[in-house]
Amino acid sequence: MTAPRPLSDGAAGRGAPADQAAVRRGNLGRVLRLLRDEGPRSRARIAEETGLNKATVSSLVAELADRGLVTAGDVHRGGSVGRPGLLVQLDGRAVCAIGVELNVDFVAVLVLDLPGDVLFEQRVALDVPALGAEATLDEVARLVEQGRAATSHAVPVGLTVAVPGLVRSVDGVVTLAPNLGWHDVPVLAGLTARIGPGCPVRVENDANLSAIAEWATGPEARTPDLVYLTGEVGVGGGVIVDGRLLRGTAGFAGEVGHNPLGDPAVVCGCGRRGCWETVVGLGALLRAAADPGDPVRDSSRDLETRLAEIAARADAGDRRTLDALAGVGAALGTGAAVLINFVDPQVVLLGGYFAVLGRFLVEPMTAALRRRVFAADRAGARVVLSTLGFTAAVRGGAHVALESVLDDPALVPVREPRTPEPRTPEPSHP
Amino acid sequence: MTAPRPLSDGAAGRGAPADQAAVRRGNLGRVLRLLRDEGPRSRARIAEETGLNKATVSSLVAELADRGLVTAGDVHRGGSVGRPGLLVQLDGRAVCAIGVELNVDFVAVLVLDLPGDVLFEQRVALDVPALGAEATLDEVARLVEQGRAATSHAVPVGLTVAVPGLVRSVDGVVTLAPNLGWHDVPVLAGLTARIGPGCPVRVENDANLSAIAEWATGPEARTPDLVYLTGEVGVGGGVIVDGRLLRGTAGFAGEVGHNPLGDPAVVCGCGRRGCWETVVGLGALLRAAADPGDPVRDSSRDLETRLAEIAARADAGDRRTLDALAGVGAALGTGAAVLINFVDPQVVLLGGYFAVLGRFLVEPMTAALRRRVFAADRAGARVVLSTLGFTAAVRGGAHVALESVLDDPALVPVREPRTPEPRTPEPSHP
Repeated sequence: MTAPRPLSDGAAGRGAPADQAAVRRGNLGRVLRLLRDEGPRSRARIAEETGLNKATVSSLVAELADRGLVTAGDVHRGGSVGRPGLLVQLDGRAVCAIGVELNVDFVAVLVLDLPGDVLFEQRVALDVPALGAEATLDEVARLVEQGRAATSHAVPVGLTVAVPGLVRSVDGVVTLAPNLGWHDVPVLAGLTARIGPGCPVRVENDANLSAIAEWATGPEARTPDLVYLTGEVGVGGGVIVDGRLLRGTAGFAGEVGHNPLGDPAVVCGCGRRGCWETVVGLGALLRAAADPGDPVRDSSRDLETRLAEIAARADAGDRRTLDALAGVGAALGTGAAVLINFVDPQVVLLGGYFAVLGRFLVEPMTAALRRRVFAADRAGARVVLSTLGFTAAVRGGAHVALESVLDDPALVPVREPRTPEPRTPEPSHP
Repeated sequence: MTAPRPLSDGAAGRGAPADQAAVRRGNLGRVLRLLRDEGPRSRARIAEETGLNKATVSSLVAELADRGLVTAGDVHRGGSVGRPGLLVQLDGRAVCAIGVELNVDFVAVLVLDLPGDVLFEQRVALDVPALGAEATLDEVARLVEQGRAATSHAVPVGLTVAVPGLVRSVDGVVTLAPNLGWHDVPVLAGLTARIGPGCPVRVENDANLSAIAEWATGPEARTPDLVYLTGEVGVGGGVIVDGRLLRGTAGFAGEVGHNPLGDPAVVCGCGRRGCWETVVGLGALLRAAADPGDPVRDSSRDLETRLAEIAARADAGDRRTLDALAGVGAALGTGAAVLINFVDPQVVLLGGYFAVLGRFLVEPMTAALRRRVFAADRAGARVVLSTLGFTAAVRGGAHVALESVLDDPALVPVREPRTPEPRTPEPSHP
């Protein structure tokens, strides 16, 4: 099959009007998304399904191949009539995207390939508040380097850092992350300086990225209106409205932990009194469930192990543990009712420790929702436990970086010639 | 100028593929919107500004004229070269749209013409909870009839009813409006039965419509992220996210009055305790400001008069009045902080009695926002007083009905021939 030569650089139409270049980039993205979402298919079928003409599709596929994003593979004999066509498919090895999470007591890195499969995953316990921002970013850079070394066959197209705090969209500065003790930390600039250029860095609130991960890949994927709540040391919220992340004016939307729905006598990590976090955060559960010397309260121990111990005590019928979980569940419902009243979502997704201990939380939570949601039957909102666990934020981060390539495949540079597929001589193409 | 004959019925392309008809309706809307927003202009200029070719523009203009939406008026001599063209302009008299508001103690109707000017306005004091749903809808139908009689030259293209409660989008049933005492009232069906077919009825939450009115026409028009809060007997919220009304799954979004941010000792109209309404609703202000026998608490008197009396007492330095206003202002800030944390809007707009008494409320409100908004400097959100007063909801309602025509001008039937403009013989046009 004769493929017209694609334009050979990122401008995809240098000299042509800007909108023509944008149209071409959009079409490259349409073809790439189709191949990712619907699997390998012939150029003829791509043309059929996108409405683009065959010559254009051939040119787009050739450009995607030059950028290492697709390969033309097996011969496809579609039905009994017509010429067979080569099947075009994603080249999963070509590019990768990196998600990073900084949290109070760990740093995590996850690398996804273009189809969304995990290439590398690493999680390191770290006392981030004690270490401070500079040393933490050094550690992140080291982990990222490790991830890149392990996936060196793939070009990293972007990296997104999840942070439990307010992130200013415009410059990736973490303006406030009380549980890290961070204030106006230029995470984007600091990390870019450490890992070097060539892999664009984004910074985003962790719960926002988790909400994106749930919307993109979880069992509730594509739910148009979705509220994600994650319980860790703090409590984070991420909101999808009509299929899009609610970011707000500066990027500060989805902040729910400091609503005045807690115990007015308790001082929060942010310095205020009565924040919701003080009754539903991990600290609130641990304080209610165990005395200070209890191993479940030892923050140097692995969190999942401690949560498993709490679950085991609850299963054994331990009164104090059950009461603590019931209290958190009810407070979770009171605060979630505010969000349901405001957003009217189909689903409230619980992540972080809320998901791990969810089977003890959902009943008291639902009872509180029944009391406090204004519309009948909790406005129809379902409470669902996340299945992505503590990896939701890094997954969401890598997903956001991958999306940038699906929106504009021309971001990926044309590759050095490898052993090329044999091609018929190319016609001249203005 | 020769105008190809437009397609002469609402199908705008009967027999043609559905998408072609949709494209034509979209183009009719683009031309109509351009004329409304940018004023009269020649066909040549419309072609230039929309990128449509001149023959298409001529055909579209002819169809809009046949539907009575535009007229071709004065000769426009654009600059010194080229042929003069007839200026095409909106025919403001052709159609109108009706906004209705039902509230606790009044019913209001407002009729707008296509350019958005008020043709008719009427507000009638009414004890809606005592009257009940059926008699109230009778009264609404009577008022609408009065409005239609006064604007009989214009075709009503739609009617939107604003209700202070939960409205199910799919069928226009008011599922819950505690301050009216309404539960599962089929307002859409009931009003359609009374006014007859031909004028589509929509039903929407009052604060949602007010938010739309502010977004469309107020001094903060086109603010992408905007939270509107209105204080009447209840407290309503309407949220614009990225230029679009946040409606939620069933249409229940924006419900803020029953968040548990009030005095837990006070029972709300909804039967719960501690709702935000119990500290910021009109009743809360009146109870705090005056004893039961005080004329400002006499709900049979005009609300604006009573609010003016409260303002006069505050201006005179009356301690009790000032304390009551300071209390409401602070509670308004506490609850608004929750919304700012969640949505990160540019603007919080205060409507209803919050706007009338705003100059006494904004200072204590802002102080509370400074304390409770998580991001620094209240996340940059400005507090602004609505200038639309108590007409915001009816304006928003009429606006929504007008928008339907701007989206699809073919909704307006072709008129009976009036004294036609002289035309040159028309070429045949398949």
